[in-house]
Amino acid sequence: MARISFATIRRLSRYYRSLEQAESREISTISSDELARLNGLTAAQVRKDLSFFGAFGRRGLGYNVPDLKRNIAKILGLDKSWNVAVVGAGNVGRALLNFDQFKKQGFIIKLILDNDQNKIGTQIAGLQVKDMQHLAQEMRANSIEIAVICVPGHAAQKIVDMCVSEEAGVKAILNFAPVPIFVPKGIALRNINMAVEIEALSFALTNPGQL
Amino acid sequence: MARISFATIRRLSRYYRSLEQAESREISTISSDELARLNGLTAAQVRKDLSFFGAFGRRGLGYNVPDLKRNIAKILGLDKSWNVAVVGAGNVGRALLNFDQFKKQGFIIKLILDNDQNKIGTQIAGLQVKDMQHLAQEMRANSIEIAVICVPGHAAQKIVDMCVSEEAGVKAILNFAPVPIFVPKGIALRNINMAVEIEALSFALTNPGQL
Repeated sequence: MARISFATIRRLSRYYRSLEQAESREISTISSDELARLNGLTAAQVRKDLSFFGAFGRRGLGYNVPDLKRNIAKILGLDKSWNVAVVGAGNVGRALLNFDQFKKQGFIIKLILDNDQNKIGTQIAGLQVKDMQHLAQEMRANSIEIAVICVPGHAAQKIVDMCVSEEAGVKAILNFAPVPIFVPKGIALRNINMAVEIEALSFALTNPGQL
Repeated sequence: MARISFATIRRLSRYYRSLEQAESREISTISSDELARLNGLTAAQVRKDLSFFGAFGRRGLGYNVPDLKRNIAKILGLDKSWNVAVVGAGNVGRALLNFDQFKKQGFIIKLILDNDQNKIGTQIAGLQVKDMQHLAQEMRANSIEIAVICVPGHAAQKIVDMCVSEEAGVKAILNFAPVPIFVPKGIALRNINMAVEIEALSFALTNPGQL
């Protein structure tokens, strides 16, 4: 498989959602036109993205919905389940623990950690908050593959370094802390920075016609 | 000003944070090398981004920190304050109301709305939850410029349509609902989709060497 961009992956995730919805409405085939319309894209873009992975619709018939959904699930790794830890039991961490969609798509939150003595030992969404002092052992004991970082900016890099240490064994980081994070080669990293996204809106409001 | 990409805006937001940190440590000048190192970029990229807006460092001296910070703030619209509404008082909405960084950067949450009778009238972070039935009037009365959509996917497009109606007058949407959203021309839109971001990680774990 050729190297593909994150933009393509984002679109595959969106097609996957459209296919889920189609399946729930018992629609068995879908055209590239319809997938494009549902996602605000061109049909040419949809066909290009999907042909890249060897999925081809039949002219006049379109794509078989369950087949294409299964193919995309396999590409995105949604046909497996992943063990996830949330580091930081603040508002963002709590929101994630209550975010049903993660579990539905195979991302199982097995561990939540905090360093606040008032939070350690309490229950959130059925999970007991563990002490961050034992981060590496807890990550290893729960076979955590993905750590979601919900700690303040000043603590984030240190926590990430602990997560990706050989002892802890985490292979992917989803970072909510509003600071740049560095990971060694071979570790996957995605950042979600709410401040950056809202600043893109104030930029657009300040500079009409831009973005 | 030439049309610039969202990727550039993201980097400007990151430089702004580096400059804030430099200023808090009373550092008065900063080089493109240092800004690059702090953000995992090349110095050439930093110089290109900043020259685009007419900011030029002096060879051997670098950029004046307060001047550059002020210039970027102006470009991003952070020298003004913006009236923000949160639609949906679930976990994500609550997390946002407690997210101090928004206020610090001039994004003032003035309104929170929900349609749940058990939530309407209760207080969250000092704001009373208003009835979503009066969305347009409340948006207009509070001069809301940016609406943050934290409702379930099936309700999101309808709520967005109400927000951007002439009656409500909202000009920018930050969407947390995990569905594609459509807005009329002239309305700014950014999506934050946690499921899409975590799927990029399972893709990377499934396809080592990709992303």
